[in-house]
Amino acid sequence: MAKREVLTPQAIDFPRWYQDVLAKAELAENGPVRGTMVIRPYGYGIWERMQGEIDARIKSTGAENAYFPLFIPESYLHREAEHVEGFSPELAVVTYGGGKRLEEPVVVRPTSETIINSYMSKWIQSYRDLPMLLNQWANVVRWELRPRLFLRTTEFLWQEGHTAHASESDARAFALRILNDVYADFMVNVLAVPVITGFKTERERFAGASMTWTCEAMMRDGKALQMGTSHELGQNFARAFDITYLDDEGETVHAWQTSWGVSTRLMGALVMTHGDDAGLRVPPLVAPVQVVVLVVKDECGASDRARALVDELAACGMRAELDDRTETSFGRRVVDWELKGVPVRLELGPRDVEEGTAVLVRRHRSLDKEQVPLSRAAFRAKESLGQAQLELLEEARTLMERSTVHVSSVEEAVEGAQTGFAVLPLRLIDEDGEDRLNEAGVSVRCVQMSDGSLPDAAGNPQAAKDAQAAREAGLVAVVARAY
Amino acid sequence: MAKREVLTPQAIDFPRWYQDVLAKAELAENGPVRGTMVIRPYGYGIWERMQGEIDARIKSTGAENAYFPLFIPESYLHREAEHVEGFSPELAVVTYGGGKRLEEPVVVRPTSETIINSYMSKWIQSYRDLPMLLNQWANVVRWELRPRLFLRTTEFLWQEGHTAHASESDARAFALRILNDVYADFMVNVLAVPVITGFKTERERFAGASMTWTCEAMMRDGKALQMGTSHELGQNFARAFDITYLDDEGETVHAWQTSWGVSTRLMGALVMTHGDDAGLRVPPLVAPVQVVVLVVKDECGASDRARALVDELAACGMRAELDDRTETSFGRRVVDWELKGVPVRLELGPRDVEEGTAVLVRRHRSLDKEQVPLSRAAFRAKESLGQAQLELLEEARTLMERSTVHVSSVEEAVEGAQTGFAVLPLRLIDEDGEDRLNEAGVSVRCVQMSDGSLPDAAGNPQAAKDAQAAREAGLVAVVARAY
Repeated sequence: MAKREVLTPQAIDFPRWYQDVLAKAELAENGPVRGTMVIRPYGYGIWERMQGEIDARIKSTGAENAYFPLFIPESYLHREAEHVEGFSPELAVVTYGGGKRLEEPVVVRPTSETIINSYMSKWIQSYRDLPMLLNQWANVVRWELRPRLFLRTTEFLWQEGHTAHASESDARAFALRILNDVYADFMVNVLAVPVITGFKTERERFAGASMTWTCEAMMRDGKALQMGTSHELGQNFARAFDITYLDDEGETVHAWQTSWGVSTRLMGALVMTHGDDAGLRVPPLVAPVQVVVLVVKDECGASDRARALVDELAACGMRAELDDRTETSFGRRVVDWELKGVPVRLELGPRDVEEGTAVLVRRHRSLDKEQVPLSRAAFRAKESLGQAQLELLEEARTLMERSTVHVSSVEEAVEGAQTGFAVLPLRLIDEDGEDRLNEAGVSVRCVQMSDGSLPDAAGNPQAAKDAQAAREAGLVAVVARAY
Repeated sequence: MAKREVLTPQAIDFPRWYQDVLAKAELAENGPVRGTMVIRPYGYGIWERMQGEIDARIKSTGAENAYFPLFIPESYLHREAEHVEGFSPELAVVTYGGGKRLEEPVVVRPTSETIINSYMSKWIQSYRDLPMLLNQWANVVRWELRPRLFLRTTEFLWQEGHTAHASESDARAFALRILNDVYADFMVNVLAVPVITGFKTERERFAGASMTWTCEAMMRDGKALQMGTSHELGQNFARAFDITYLDDEGETVHAWQTSWGVSTRLMGALVMTHGDDAGLRVPPLVAPVQVVVLVVKDECGASDRARALVDELAACGMRAELDDRTETSFGRRVVDWELKGVPVRLELGPRDVEEGTAVLVRRHRSLDKEQVPLSRAAFRAKESLGQAQLELLEEARTLMERSTVHVSSVEEAVEGAQTGFAVLPLRLIDEDGEDRLNEAGVSVRCVQMSDGSLPDAAGNPQAAKDAQAAREAGLVAVVARAY
C-alpha cells in the first residue's frame, strides 16, 4: 500500500511504536516530574471502564472499598524486614509540611500493607471479625529509574486488596479466588488478553509475601507482562502489626493475610497485546466509543441520516459517536479512528444514502469492508462488536501458543525466550540456573503444572510453597523476557 | 426515655457529637500522620454513591475525566503570584526520591491548576479546541494545623474540574452551569441538603480566581459549611501558562478559564445536616443499605421469612440487608442500625410471622412505628424511602429558614450569626465592616440578590465582579460562623 505510515511499524522498533501510539491515540504523556504520567481523556475513558469491571468483580467476592492515607510514617515500613528492604530504594519522602521541617519524615505510599494492617490490628478482635476483606483504589509512588508510560511510572493508579483470614487455607483460597475469578476472568473475558497463571519463584516474590500468584500475558513482541499479582502474606504482617483474634476456643491467634493488585499497567497490556501498525484495537467491552459513524461528505442528507443512525445505535445499547467533521478530509479522519482503535466504523456518503446502505469496517479486520443495508446497520454493528471481542482474544491466544516452545535445558530456555515463552521442567532450574537465566536477561515468569493449570488446583498445595516438593510434583517454569 | 445515650447529645457538645458519630457509625478515623484520615467501608460506600451521582452530572456537561500527576515541580506554583501566595503555607514537599536528594523539590498537589494548565497550553491551538472541559477525581494535600475529619484534613479526596473557553461569557456560563446543574442539583436532590448560592467577597476568593461562586449549607448547630465552589479564573492562569488560541479571525487570544471542586467535605455536610442524637440519618439515594430486615428472634421461621423479604426488596431495586445476628440482643442491633442511619428498618419476629406482618420504622421519624402486612412490606419500604429523601430535605430547609435573620448593621449581623445566618444589605459592609465581622469570628459566606437568586441570573454580571456595582444592585451578604 502506498499509504504513509502514521506509526513506526512494530517490526521495525516495537518500543518506538509503543511510544508513538500512546501519543497519537492521545492515551498518555509524560508528566513534568521524571517518571510521572498524564492520562488523557481517551486513555482515562478506557481505564474507567476497566475499573468498573474489576470493581464489580472485587465486590462480588464480598470485599468492600475503603480509603487509607497517602502518607505513611517512615517507621511503619521498618516493621516488616523484607518489606522495607524491598521498597526502601523506591521511596519518595516528604520532609517539609506546612512550611516546617517534619519531626518524622513521611513516605508516600509505595503500597499500603503497613498502614492498612496497623488498622486491621485495631479492628480485628474475634474470629467473628474474619474474614476482613478490604480494597482501595488509589495512587501509589515508586521512584522509577527507567520509567515507561503505563508500564513503569513513578506514580501509578491501582487497586490494592488487603484481607485477613482465620486460617492459612482460607487465605490461600481467597488469594486464588482473586487470581482466577477477578483477575484472570477480567483479563481474558473483558480485556481479551489471554493469560497464564502460576506462582512466582522465591526471588520474584513480593517483598514480605510467603507466596505470590501471578497472571502473565505475552505482548506482540514476545515479551511477558506481569498483569496482576495476588499474594499470600502468611502471618508475616500479622506478626509485625500484631493482628490477632480470639478463636472459638478462646486462644489468641495471628491472622493469615493476602494482598493483591492490578494497576494502570493493564493499559500497557491492552496496547501491546492488540495494537497493530495502524494503531490501537480496543476490545469493545472497554472501548469508550464502540461504533463511530463517519459522514463521508455532507450531501443528500448524509449528516442527518448519520445522526439518526447514531441515535439508533445508542438506543441499542452501543456507545456510538458521530463524526461529521467534513471540513477535515475523510482519509485523515479514518486514520485517526484507526489510531484510536474504535472497534466498528460505519461510513455514510451521499451514494450510500441513495442506495440505503452504509459501509461497515471492523477495526480488527480492516481489509474486510462490507456494504450493509441501513436497516440492518445497527444489528450488524452489534454483531461485529461481539465478534471483535472474541476474535481479538483468539488472535492473541494463537500468537501466544505459536510463540511458546517447550525446552529441556536452561540454555534452550534462554534461546526460546528471545521470541516468546520457553517452558521447561522446574527441576532443571536450580538456584544457579535461575542466576544464569537472569544474567541472560530472562526470568521465570511463573511456575505451573505441565498442563498449564495451577498447582493448587491440582490438589498439591505443598508444591506451591516448597521448591523441593514442586520439583517432585512435575511442575514447569515459564521463562521469558519481561517488561 | 431511660435509654442510655450512645452519643454525646448535639445540644450538649456538637463537635463532640460529630466525633462520636463518625467513630461509632464507623465512617472514618484519624490517620497516623497528623491531619490524615482513614475512610472506613461504610463511609466510603456513601462517598462512592456521591461520586457516581456527581460524576454523571459532570459528564452530562460534556466534561471528560483525565488524570494528572500528584507531584508538581515547585517552580510551577510560582507562575501565578496570588496562587503561590495562597497555597505556599500549606504545601507538603518531597525532597528525597529513590534514595537521593532531588535537584528540584516537588510539591504534592494542593490543587492542579498549575499542572493541568501547563498541558492545556500544549493542547489548545485553535478556537476549534475550545471549550476544553476536563475533570479529575484525585487526592490532594494541604497541610492542616487544625484538622477535623472530613471537614479539614491534610489529605482529602475530591474532583477538580478545569476548563478553557473562547470568551469570558462562555467561561462564566460554564462556571454557573457547574454551580447550579451539577453542584446545587446534587446537594439538594441527592444529599437532601438545601444550599444557598452566591459569590465570594474578594478576600474569600480562591487564590488566583477573578470570581468564586459557592454553595453554602447550614449545619444543625447553625454554622455554615462551604459545600463546593466554582471559580472563574479570568485569563490569569492562561497568561501565566501561555494558553492561547487562534480565533476565527486569526488573532492570538488568551483563553478564559474556570476551575471547580467538591470534596469528601460533603461527607461532613451529610453528617451535620441530617444526624441526630441517635446517629446518622443517611438520605436514601446515597445510603449503602437502604432497608435492613431485622430478625427479632429466630423462631417460627422468622429468619427464612426475613431472607425472602430481603430478596423481594432487592428485586424491587432496593439495597437491602439481612440482620439475623440473633446472638446479639435485638436492642443493641437497633441502636447500631440507628447509628448507621439506615433509612428504613423492617423488624420481623415470631409473632409477626404468625400474623403475616412486619414492623416498619423510618429512621428519620423513629417514633412512628407501623405494622405492615408482609405482602405490602416491599411497597411500603419503597414509598418510605421516597418520603425520607424528601422529608430530610424539608426538615433541613425549615431549620435553615428558621435560623436565618435579616439585619441592618454589622453588629446585628455578628449577633445573628451566633445561631445561624444573618442577611444584610451588602452596601452596609465596607472593607472595615468585613474586618469587624472576621474579628468577631464570622464571615461573609456569599453575596446574592435579596431574593436569594444569583446576581448573574438577574442579568447583572457586572455586579458580580465589581463591589461598587454590587452595592448599587441591591445585593445582600449572608453572614455566618463557618466550618
